[in-house]
Amino acid sequence: MDVQYLFRVIMPEMRSLEDYLEGTLGDADPSVRDVVTHLMRAGGKRIRPALVFLAAKFGGTFDLDRLLPVAAAAEIIHMATLAHDDIIDGAEVRRGLTTVHAEWSPQVAILAGDYLFAQGFRLLARTGEPRAVEIMANVVFEMCQGEIHESVAALTGADADEKAYLERIGKKTAIFLAESCRLGALMAGADEVTTRVLRMFGWGIGLGFQIVDDVLDLTSSSVAFGKTLGTDLRAGVLTLPVIHGLTHATDPRLRDIAQGRAGGEGDMEELKDILGRSGSFAYAEGMARRFVGDAVRNLSLLPECDAREALLSMADFVVEREV
Amino acid sequence: MDVQYLFRVIMPEMRSLEDYLEGTLGDADPSVRDVVTHLMRAGGKRIRPALVFLAAKFGGTFDLDRLLPVAAAAEIIHMATLAHDDIIDGAEVRRGLTTVHAEWSPQVAILAGDYLFAQGFRLLARTGEPRAVEIMANVVFEMCQGEIHESVAALTGADADEKAYLERIGKKTAIFLAESCRLGALMAGADEVTTRVLRMFGWGIGLGFQIVDDVLDLTSSSVAFGKTLGTDLRAGVLTLPVIHGLTHATDPRLRDIAQGRAGGEGDMEELKDILGRSGSFAYAEGMARRFVGDAVRNLSLLPECDAREALLSMADFVVEREV
Repeated sequence: MDVQYLFRVIMPEMRSLEDYLEGTLGDADPSVRDVVTHLMRAGGKRIRPALVFLAAKFGGTFDLDRLLPVAAAAEIIHMATLAHDDIIDGAEVRRGLTTVHAEWSPQVAILAGDYLFAQGFRLLARTGEPRAVEIMANVVFEMCQGEIHESVAALTGADADEKAYLERIGKKTAIFLAESCRLGALMAGADEVTTRVLRMFGWGIGLGFQIVDDVLDLTSSSVAFGKTLGTDLRAGVLTLPVIHGLTHATDPRLRDIAQGRAGGEGDMEELKDILGRSGSFAYAEGMARRFVGDAVRNLSLLPECDAREALLSMADFVVEREV
Repeated sequence: MDVQYLFRVIMPEMRSLEDYLEGTLGDADPSVRDVVTHLMRAGGKRIRPALVFLAAKFGGTFDLDRLLPVAAAAEIIHMATLAHDDIIDGAEVRRGLTTVHAEWSPQVAILAGDYLFAQGFRLLARTGEPRAVEIMANVVFEMCQGEIHESVAALTGADADEKAYLERIGKKTAIFLAESCRLGALMAGADEVTTRVLRMFGWGIGLGFQIVDDVLDLTSSSVAFGKTLGTDLRAGVLTLPVIHGLTHATDPRLRDIAQGRAGGEGDMEELKDILGRSGSFAYAEGMARRFVGDAVRNLSLLPECDAREALLSMADFVVEREV
């Protein structure tokens, strides 16, 4: 399913967003602009701003001028985290494009990320709504805590269990999608229950999205996924299929490969095979479907409308996507 | 001169700041706390929060509870930039302590910096003053533009002239000191002219401070300075003494060393000698004194008081410091 199709109810808003994002580059020095333009191209699906717009449809006042800086800030801060994540993961490719640290240098990628963080918070400050800044600062705060925890655990070789994994992806992915929904609701003056339902929806599809992403990191064909496969494992980070496999697979080779940080092409194939036989991919996919199912059930509390349909389609997309 | 001595008029505020900074760590995960505690120890002089407090003394209402989050945010965001700068510069030591990327990993240092940025903006958002967020976001924004420009110039081997250098250190250092003054004035409700004088004071001492820092990077004994010397040059970044030397020194070895990115211990000594003979250090120091002199002259527009004395001593410290 094409993502653009999901967003047809907010097509004009998504078009304005692209113009707005372009416009924010107007302030940038030419050397900065090249780097940021590159990141925007690699940016992809614009899920966070779409959630801001869709959630705002459930508020009393849908004011595009008020929403645009918030939607743009969500995407820009997302791009900032991608620039930094790619250095941390040592990823060379994202969505088929060379990553910033590979194309320029890690130094430039660090600074481009910082630049985008600053740009994002600048836009949020301009809304005159301190809660918008606080919500987004909190997202970044939690994301970093989750990732530092992951990095330190990977350095010290600490094993991950399912609970730690879910907590980690909550901080890494779900909170951002949840708070994008909340920001849209807040800026449109939605009531408290509506805001909570939308936030929980974002949280559920966020968990589902990340689990599916972690499965695809091991199973997808590299070209379609547009990323280097197995990056987590190579960095010593254990994701749900591997965690499940480590307690359920009988093949002793799994632990070797997981601890040996799967260097060779052959190792990855073998790992895939073992995790397939132990039902670990199916287990992870089932869990993703359960989280997304919870997210969807909550939506029935909201009035039926085009925006609700779009959120439902987005939930379907999360569990069914193959890239 | 001891920096603590300069701050005696704001001693209670500086003590509260330390407690407040400690308190902000309360939210952190233990693995994050270690990293951030390390950064706080290496943090140093607390010049930015001191400027917030001192500038606020010229406003109508000096409310410590209102000032603390802003002063803390200034220091925390400064720490964030240090964590990232140290990776970018490849510095192993800062103020005699191992840098975060050397002690843990570049990954952890990137995330710790992001975490601190988020923490800083969270504190600013809590003041309920969107202008405080916007001012600080703008500081980070300009700093990053300056540094990306520097990194890209170093990568492409572009030469720097004095004008480009001054623009760069304006963005890299002076704007942060200027805006720290402005934030203090803003939070204390100072009038517009007072705010402008304080901001220009911060700008002037900021330029002076950075020029002196760039001289010390080449002349200081490594132990006293607490940093690895010559890091800028090794990264291909030309600072004022070198820029002056390149057009004024007659010794052809200077260009070789500057372009060869001075690897050996002997190269650094030779460079120091050449720049000493061409009067390039004296030139740079003279320029630092001129900027600080301008900053000081403006202060006479403000009422005579303890805070003004403290700012004057700070200006003296900037040009006279040897570490």
